[in-house]
Amino acid sequence: MLTLYDNMDSGNGYKARLLLHKLAVPYKRVELDIDRSETRTAQFLVKNANGRIPTLELGDGTCLPESNAIIHYLAEGSPYLPEDRLKHAQVLQWMFFEQYSHEPYVATPRYIVRHLGRGHARMRELPDRHQKGHAALAVMDGHLAKRRFFVDERLTIADIALYAYTHVAHEGDLDIGRYGNVRAWLERVAAEPRHIPITQG
Amino acid sequence: MLTLYDNMDSGNGYKARLLLHKLAVPYKRVELDIDRSETRTAQFLVKNANGRIPTLELGDGTCLPESNAIIHYLAEGSPYLPEDRLKHAQVLQWMFFEQYSHEPYVATPRYIVRHLGRGHARMRELPDRHQKGHAALAVMDGHLAKRRFFVDERLTIADIALYAYTHVAHEGDLDIGRYGNVRAWLERVAAEPRHIPITQG
Repeated sequence: MLTLYDNMDSGNGYKARLLLHKLAVPYKRVELDIDRSETRTAQFLVKNANGRIPTLELGDGTCLPESNAIIHYLAEGSPYLPEDRLKHAQVLQWMFFEQYSHEPYVATPRYIVRHLGRGHARMRELPDRHQKGHAALAVMDGHLAKRRFFVDERLTIADIALYAYTHVAHEGDLDIGRYGNVRAWLERVAAEPRHIPITQG
Repeated sequence: MLTLYDNMDSGNGYKARLLLHKLAVPYKRVELDIDRSETRTAQFLVKNANGRIPTLELGDGTCLPESNAIIHYLAEGSPYLPEDRLKHAQVLQWMFFEQYSHEPYVATPRYIVRHLGRGHARMRELPDRHQKGHAALAVMDGHLAKRRFFVDERLTIADIALYAYTHVAHEGDLDIGRYGNVRAWLERVAAEPRHIPITQG
């Protein structure tokens, strides 16, 4: 049995939850309170020295951190990860884009607003983060102008990785209204079989 | 023939250069001056809408951005990328760690010092970035305490991704002196067959 160390509010955790549900893979979910530093205890740091969720524990006790590595592991051999060499690399291209050019600017504002609160000093980071978030959304919107999904015209883990925080960007005060192609893609992803919301375990 | 859009000072570009050399794959290198925004021209944005190097152009004109997606593409079928499902995911785990928890704190200080200059206002970002850089180095040092390389006890693209900016961290004033396991690993990577320095095309 797989165990997912998770936090229900985390988009990174949601990537794993969503794919596990789509694949109908049974797993045990362990909720950690990131606001109480439950990912920084000695007990958890043995599982992931980087102190972050999600972390996937396999049946033999091996622990795999990093949301995008987890969904790559889960997706291998499924329709959500193309086997073709170039398409595989293109899926990873968008997943690295997500971690470097998207997550710090689309996800972190949401973390600041929801977990630190609107009275926190880090609220002053939002304008700069939003500016870079808009740059990421503009790149996505251009790519989706003539495509239904990011790679291979079907839902892959590239879409799952990018969907997780894009669909809740407004919760970090980032307005995606002007990105019509992104909004249509969000609807397509949510209409795919076995979709679950971020609030569902 | 492959074409690599590159900048000789870039550690991200070096990842691709180093692996192309190891694999003895011929390619054409096109140097772009990032300080003169040559990655933001209309001509280049067609190749990578995110406006960054490295970008690999394949023989048919397809362009693949993101350094870690490029080296995954190049490494497939070679000894530098394990085929085993878990080991493959562990290689990606360290590559996502590199882009999210390492690059902004180990590479960006070097960019600020070398490209913006010591008189630039962004120099004030260094203390915070270095603090997080030390956190990343501590995670790496712990992992390497009982290992020769990051995954599978052999050089993989996880090592290449992490080596690129770690071995020049001092150029961004980040001192790696206290991380003995990391320093020994840097020497092992540099002693591997067909190694080239970051200054070599």
